[in-house]
Amino acid sequence: MSDPAFTLDPRLDADTHPVGELPLSTVRLMDDARFPWLILVPKRAGLADLVDLSDEDAAIMNEEIRLASRVLRDLTSPYKLNVAALGNSVRQLHVHVIARFDDDPAWPKPVWGVGTPATYDPATADTLITRLRAGFGLA
Amino acid sequence: MSDPAFTLDPRLDADTHPVGELPLSTVRLMDDARFPWLILVPKRAGLADLVDLSDEDAAIMNEEIRLASRVLRDLTSPYKLNVAALGNSVRQLHVHVIARFDDDPAWPKPVWGVGTPATYDPATADTLITRLRAGFGLA
Repeated sequence: MSDPAFTLDPRLDADTHPVGELPLSTVRLMDDARFPWLILVPKRAGLADLVDLSDEDAAIMNEEIRLASRVLRDLTSPYKLNVAALGNSVRQLHVHVIARFDDDPAWPKPVWGVGTPATYDPATADTLITRLRAGFGLA
Repeated sequence: MSDPAFTLDPRLDADTHPVGELPLSTVRLMDDARFPWLILVPKRAGLADLVDLSDEDAAIMNEEIRLASRVLRDLTSPYKLNVAALGNSVRQLHVHVIARFDDDPAWPKPVWGVGTPATYDPATADTLITRLRAGFGLA
């Protein structure tokens, strides 16, 4: 199902840890321990907006966003989920799925552009990624 | 398909103009002439997150978001679309579909919390809503 012309945007690559591969999306963990924050990037070249996906891919994307939301919710029990496809800074189509808490450093604002990312220490990232992979059924 | 227990959150009601009714969502125009900005509210009571929708409703929501994206894109030819379900301030599940331009007052930041809304004059709102309704096939 993967598009051989797809390559992950280098800024998305630099800002995230790889979690695993879904049929359409590559799942990444934003390297910011302040917010449990997944990014799903559909493995299709040249897309910027969700509406650029084919009808078939959009239905799969919807399912993968739901799966990521459930995985993140089950793992972190957030007060709220934030789901967004913005792409103003990195144009490659990507979807944020973020667990929000009413005492997190950005609440109630959106997380983008707030403060400075607190990168994970490697052991914490590894543990979280292992749990995420199990949640996605990728263990 | 509408849930008789559904009522629109009063803050969403106050901040928007009604555009029309889709099978699942009520479509509203944010009363902020700085950004062409639709809000879709699925007519289901008691939901906060997209993942709270049933599988069936989520598939319809996906289609209605795509329809709203196409309508807004065809009408305004934006540089980028922003699609988001945040709900940190108004908890009732609602989805933003926003046409973004690289010279708009918030670019490249997200629109939420930036500056002060510039409310539409009534004639401009009426004209835009008429065009939106035509785009949605509600004319």
